[in-house]
Amino acid sequence: MANVEEVMKIIIKCVDFAAVKHKDQRRKDAEKTPYINHPIGVAKILTEEAGIWDPVVIQAAILHDTVEDTDTSLDEIESIFGVEVRNVVAEVTDDKSLSKMQRKELQVMNAQSSSKEAKLVKLADKLYNLRDLKRCTPEGWDEVRVREYFEWSGRVVRKLRGTNAAMEDKLCEILGFTILLE
Amino acid sequence: MANVEEVMKIIIKCVDFAAVKHKDQRRKDAEKTPYINHPIGVAKILTEEAGIWDPVVIQAAILHDTVEDTDTSLDEIESIFGVEVRNVVAEVTDDKSLSKMQRKELQVMNAQSSSKEAKLVKLADKLYNLRDLKRCTPEGWDEVRVREYFEWSGRVVRKLRGTNAAMEDKLCEILGFTILLE
Ligand SMILES: [Mn+2]
Ligand SMILES: [Mn+2]
Repeated sequence: MANVEEVMKIIIKCVDFAAVKHKDQRRKDAEKTPYINHPIGVAKILTEEAGIWDPVVIQAAILHDTVEDTDTSLDEIESIFGVEVRNVVAEVTDDKSLSKMQRKELQVMNAQSSSKEAKLVKLADKLYNLRDLKRCTPEGWDEVRVREYFEWSGRVVRKLRGTNAAMEDKLCEILGFTILLE
Repeated sequence: MANVEEVMKIIIKCVDFAAVKHKDQRRKDAEKTPYINHPIGVAKILTEEAGIWDPVVIQAAILHDTVEDTDTSLDEIESIFGVEVRNVVAEVTDDKSLSKMQRKELQVMNAQSSSKEAKLVKLADKLYNLRDLKRCTPEGWDEVRVREYFEWSGRVVRKLRGTNAAMEDKLCEILGFTILLE
């Protein structure tokens, strides 16, 4: 995909699709920020901070929580955005039939063998969420839960090393350097 | 602007900017849909239905309510998105120091002399809002208020004729053909 018109059209279609799908969801902050601000912010980390403009990665970033958190199916994603985008979204979608703990362990176990595209989305997602946690504590979370989230994120991020220096440097900083040493 | 990377970067930056600015606003429907879904949907009407991919028009569509409805200034828009985008946003921004009735009359009076870019945003905005009104009546609106909105929209749209056939055809249909005859 190399044409400005096509990129413009597919990105707007993709943002609109995700905004409609997430319209009833809110983030966990006190202001109840619309959920769609998160996938948009993840895409912006990729374009503004990571130097990533691959349309497949950016579309997957915008769509990354639609299958996990809304009624969207992978087939629906494929029929509109193509099989490449579908495959990346599938890689970043947790299996909700598993327990929360199992899903978290699988994220650690599957990180290293992910595709480069999925690793980029995972790094940007973690960076967004950790910054959001630093900004404010989600409603109902205590200090222990926040610390556990940081520790688990560090375990995932460690397995994603070697993907994108800019994001890894910023994750290193926010997580504390030691967590990234083996 | 002819480069895929630049377009990708500026569109994501623009959607993120608008999403953050509108984060505390909701649409007037019962579901309290996030306000950001509206400017995103206006941009999608332009790319999907009107065949418009001019990055200045699409950015202005995404930003079209930020100055009117949030703390955003035109200078802020210009410093990030450039003077062309600023000028279109300025053209589609009502002066909130005037009464609601004065603002509505000014929209009718200023429509015809607007730039082509501003006319495109105005048509897409009206089309989105009229479809939304057909879908559901905003909280607190009665039938008379809905009818008055349709009539006023017809007066504005009539002054915008000759801008984009695809959108005008659809507006014609939703407004009733007669309203577009002089
Ligand atoms: Mn996410
Ligand atoms: Mn509007």
